[in-house]
Amino acid sequence: MEIKQIEQQFLDYLKQQNAYEEALSLMYWDLRTKAPKKGAEQRAEVIGFLSQKMHELSTSDEMKSYIDQLKGVTDNAIIQKSVEVCEEEYEKNNKIPNDEFKAYKMLQSKAESIWEEAREQSDFSLLQPYLEKLVAYNKKFATYWGYEDHIYDALLHQYEPGVTTKTLDRVFPELRKELTALLNKIKKSTVQPDPSILQHAFNKENQQAFSLEILERMGYDFEAGRLDETVHPFAISLNPNDVRVTTRYDEDDFRMAVFGTIHEGGHALYEQNIDKKLALTPLATGTSMGIHESQSLFWENFVARNEGFWTNHFDLFKSYAPAAFQHLTLDEFYPAINEVKPSFIRIEADELTYSLHIMIRYELEKALISGEIEVKDLPRLWNDKMEEYLGIRPSSDKEGVLQDIHWSAGNFGYFPSYALGYMYAAQFHHTLKQELDVDQIIKKGDFEQIKAWLTKHIHKYGKMKKPLAILEDVTHEPLNPSYLVSYLTDKYSRIYNF
Amino acid sequence: MEIKQIEQQFLDYLKQQNAYEEALSLMYWDLRTKAPKKGAEQRAEVIGFLSQKMHELSTSDEMKSYIDQLKGVTDNAIIQKSVEVCEEEYEKNNKIPNDEFKAYKMLQSKAESIWEEAREQSDFSLLQPYLEKLVAYNKKFATYWGYEDHIYDALLHQYEPGVTTKTLDRVFPELRKELTALLNKIKKSTVQPDPSILQHAFNKENQQAFSLEILERMGYDFEAGRLDETVHPFAISLNPNDVRVTTRYDEDDFRMAVFGTIHEGGHALYEQNIDKKLALTPLATGTSMGIHESQSLFWENFVARNEGFWTNHFDLFKSYAPAAFQHLTLDEFYPAINEVKPSFIRIEADELTYSLHIMIRYELEKALISGEIEVKDLPRLWNDKMEEYLGIRPSSDKEGVLQDIHWSAGNFGYFPSYALGYMYAAQFHHTLKQELDVDQIIKKGDFEQIKAWLTKHIHKYGKMKKPLAILEDVTHEPLNPSYLVSYLTDKYSRIYNF
Repeated sequence: MEIKQIEQQFLDYLKQQNAYEEALSLMYWDLRTKAPKKGAEQRAEVIGFLSQKMHELSTSDEMKSYIDQLKGVTDNAIIQKSVEVCEEEYEKNNKIPNDEFKAYKMLQSKAESIWEEAREQSDFSLLQPYLEKLVAYNKKFATYWGYEDHIYDALLHQYEPGVTTKTLDRVFPELRKELTALLNKIKKSTVQPDPSILQHAFNKENQQAFSLEILERMGYDFEAGRLDETVHPFAISLNPNDVRVTTRYDEDDFRMAVFGTIHEGGHALYEQNIDKKLALTPLATGTSMGIHESQSLFWENFVARNEGFWTNHFDLFKSYAPAAFQHLTLDEFYPAINEVKPSFIRIEADELTYSLHIMIRYELEKALISGEIEVKDLPRLWNDKMEEYLGIRPSSDKEGVLQDIHWSAGNFGYFPSYALGYMYAAQFHHTLKQELDVDQIIKKGDFEQIKAWLTKHIHKYGKMKKPLAILEDVTHEPLNPSYLVSYLTDKYSRIYNF
Repeated sequence: MEIKQIEQQFLDYLKQQNAYEEALSLMYWDLRTKAPKKGAEQRAEVIGFLSQKMHELSTSDEMKSYIDQLKGVTDNAIIQKSVEVCEEEYEKNNKIPNDEFKAYKMLQSKAESIWEEAREQSDFSLLQPYLEKLVAYNKKFATYWGYEDHIYDALLHQYEPGVTTKTLDRVFPELRKELTALLNKIKKSTVQPDPSILQHAFNKENQQAFSLEILERMGYDFEAGRLDETVHPFAISLNPNDVRVTTRYDEDDFRMAVFGTIHEGGHALYEQNIDKKLALTPLATGTSMGIHESQSLFWENFVARNEGFWTNHFDLFKSYAPAAFQHLTLDEFYPAINEVKPSFIRIEADELTYSLHIMIRYELEKALISGEIEVKDLPRLWNDKMEEYLGIRPSSDKEGVLQDIHWSAGNFGYFPSYALGYMYAAQFHHTLKQELDVDQIIKKGDFEQIKAWLTKHIHKYGKMKKPLAILEDVTHEPLNPSYLVSYLTDKYSRIYNF
């Protein structure tokens, strides 16, 4: 058969995968936003069936034959890269025996619901037996998949290909040292922001209107997306022209919705601005969890927690805010939204302490997978590390080891992406500053320039480039945590006057 | 293999069909309610692929083998009936050659979008060539499927199995004679309702709140459904515990949303109250278009346009209505919502003239399929019949032949269901009146009794019984249009005082 014919068949095959993916994404979106609760049970069966179909397509003999026929042969770069991505997926999935894959999927979904109950009751012992099985499976899978230095690398690879424990063990200690030093300076400062000035009733409709206006200004395309309300905010791409965002409204704290929407908007801008030539291939999505997070954090923190952003948008904010906010000055407001304070819950952490939360999780999960520690010791070890890194000790499992869903979903190796995202974002930000007067641009609200730069250097590539290739192509150096440190030092030395 | 094993395999196979159906239903619902418009193009591809999968499952050799192994053999009534439904579908789909099926699907989707344009421009000639092809395909399909008396019966069978042209040619002329006589009396009456008293601004939020309250009182289960806004209202079952309703708000005419919601709520109650034992089989849906319409019309007209309904709910209505409605008396309001007046648009027609609109469509499509008339003559023939049946002549294609989407969607044989639904509803209503004091129950707002009766006699069966079997089992006689006539006579003689 002609190579062009095989290419066409391969592309048609990818379209099938894509169809299942879009159906599944819509089902997840619907379950989290709109679906009536009684329908969820049957919906779970439907999701199970369609996921199975997806899995079959990615591990089929037909897929294998496309890989064998096209790999290194096609001169079409998109097809070549698609073949590589499919081959990785094929190898990864085919290395796990079918019965283990099914049992693992069932365990995952069971463990997730047990986690909800355990968290509710703040009782780790409920989850422990499930977590033990999940860890055992992940060790097994890591062995199937293989690794060079450390067993945990095989898991890390799923979320951040190219990054290894070696990288993390180089950057995290350095970052921790600097963050701790900064944190000490902040603690000792006589200048302390007062975040209580932000905690006034602010009705949902107005928070929504303000959030929508900011999303619009960021360049989010509402003809290719929409904003809805959920308990846990997320962004999801159904297809390149349908990328949806959700947020959560807390009428006593507008920060939840406003910064949450901007964060998810950053994820969405990434997905909306991938080159449309990649549509209907596995390349039409963000290249990794870490690069994705770098985009959401870039908008949430480097843009929307920047002083210039509020110089520009403070009047707009006040036009939606209730009376209690009208007397506030920018000099009170800006420090208040940037308060640094060690806290128990990761997703509520400030820009500085956030990465410390991640390091705790990284160290614990690495030790779990390598067998140095046991699941039953997690609550104690978690609390010990919190005390060591952040100087506070959780008084319950709920505000400690049970706060995140990741482990009960079997996602070991995922957490480092969050801290990598911070470091990537800072490194991108540093490069962007060399090229453009970012602070001035943010102050002017000319986000089109920022969006264009991110699209040109990051978004458009989708999965055409691996995460570290993007980082190095844009910034001309390997991962370097010092940019995050200098960004935070610069920012907080002004706010806390040290 | 043991029969029980085959049965289990068959049930698993049905679950697969069900999964595709739920995914497709969610996609349709989403496209009509929430989906960003730019995403629709790729969504159409996904829908095409999943529909193709559905079609493959219903026409596969595997399906044929289940039918052959189980038909008449199984002693499980649900499986037996499921086999029968699958066999009908298998025969129907396999009689159409694959290439014709695909070409027809493409023509359908093209014609639907041309129809929108043609209607916009009020120009039938744009649609004519597509309609000619659609008619030709439908004639061909009818020949493939076969019929006893009249070629149109093969098409009618898709929507209302058991009902034939012979039945319709018996009941429609009789019904038309009586409706026309009634209409003449109404026209001559010196008493005329004044619907202008209803046309005051009524904000959407309050219309919605009132509609939600009525849906709740009807017994619609909001934990297994939800109400959204669309241009064209509909009810859709994603699964037996997820049956959604949509409505449309006209701020200058509350009747659109209120009666529209109740109508769709009637459809939804049917789907929500099918016996859960039928879930995940093809029996877990309404048995026919006509029986479905009988349920929506029952609630919309026989309940919600009943005088007692408003005796009970007028205060509630006023609590949501703006000032302009507060001085209205029930004696003004009740006749106004029941005005009879020939009008051009079917979906805006009153209870009396509605069936006349259907007869016009029935006669035209029957003649098209049998070859007695040609597509090009439709606009003229339509207008002639409007003049003959309703005494008014459309001045444009838009308010004439182009108003409905059905023909451009290839749905020939569908229209009679609407008038059948009216007659079924009236016949059910008559039976119910023998057993219970319906007017008193409506006046008391005790809808639970009505819902329970409809569930017991109609809803719970899903597709376990054919439409005419349901009608005869409940009312102990064949289709009889006189019940609709006497219901309308009774109602309008009071309102119009004749």
